Amino acid sequence: MSAGDEIEALIALMARLPGLGPRSARRAVLHLIRKRGALMAPLAAAMAHVAETVRECARCGNIATGDICEICTDPKRATGELCVVEDVADLWAMERGQAFKGRYHVLGGTLSALDAVGPEELGIPRLVARVRDEGLGEVILALNATVEGQTTAHYIAEALEGTGVSITSLAQGVPIGGELDYLDDGTIQAALRARKAF
Amino acid sequence: MSAGDEIEALIALMARLPGLGPRSARRAVLHLIRKRGALMAPLAAAMAHVAETVRECARCGNIATGDICEICTDPKRATGELCVVEDVADLWAMERGQAFKGRYHVLGGTLSALDAVGPEELGIPRLVARVRDEGLGEVILALNATVEGQTTAHYIAEALEGTGVSITSLAQGVPIGGELDYLDDGTIQAALRARKAF
Repeated sequence: MSAGDEIEALIALMARLPGLGPRSARRAVLHLIRKRGALMAPLAAAMAHVAETVRECARCGNIATGDICEICTDPKRATGELCVVEDVADLWAMERGQAFKGRYHVLGGTLSALDAVGPEELGIPRLVARVRDEGLGEVILALNATVEGQTTAHYIAEALEGTGVSITSLAQGVPIGGELDYLDDGTIQAALRARKAF
Repeated sequence: MSAGDEIEALIALMARLPGLGPRSARRAVLHLIRKRGALMAPLAAAMAHVAETVRECARCGNIATGDICEICTDPKRATGELCVVEDVADLWAMERGQAFKGRYHVLGGTLSALDAVGPEELGIPRLVARVRDEGLGEVILALNATVEGQTTAHYIAEALEGTGVSITSLAQGVPIGGELDYLDDGTIQAALRARKAF
């Protein structure tokens, strides 16, 4: 290739990002090279900085730049409510919603016998200990509405029995702006089962 | 945001890449953070290295790590054929085709009165001088089959009149594997005009 080995190596690394294939990675690298002063150099520096400073919050599993993340250190978020999510992406989605004011517990996945992910790997014993130690009032299970998510939610609910904490989960139903014609059967069934007085 | 200012800054920079929006940039950054040892640190290093070493070939406009690119320094490519392309991406596409063994001239765009891109900006006088100096036998105009590309091709052909070089352009017709039913009218008309004995 005329582009030089270093550029080929960069394209190969970029192609490993989700949402970019070999073709779009090539286009992205070409764009970076054209804007190497204004975009490529700052992006490389920002990436190196984050790679060096970022780690997992020792308490909740969120992304943090110190030992403990911003949410765990913020005293205003000690509401006694704990939201259990699968993933940091889900935590970010909850934060975008701006409706939850408590703290989080990030599992980092779901239970999976096939992938050898058990309760230990997801930190569920640590979650139970945390609920006891911090004297929490409510655990909200905000796991994905998939088979794996719901299986994991059931396991956590059982593990938390005996701690006296109140366990809730996100409501299932028609999404805001949703049109019935475009919804899957499962959502319509769930919305009908959970219907409420108008 | 819980993600921290450095991470937000990184997401904003990533979102400026072609093919990535704010949402997919967020997903890409999360992926990078998860693989910060195996992917993020090497990617940052590769990007910084390329940003520092890469420049434009002084002779043809291709991307190079020295003053002159690999194609211009390779004596095997002194075939007397010069392929004129709009862009480095087009040069890469030609190289992927592995059919052209000569050298290139990268214009860096097309003539555009609106964007104040004239012959000087595209290096067309430099191209004419190069054709004379290097005693080239053939100039292949491999510009895009768009109005801008073809206007620029006509201008270059006129500018090269008097140098005695033979001027050709890529054939237009049905692409390999193309189905007539899915082709636009212009392509079918061009293919019919350029029909040849079977």
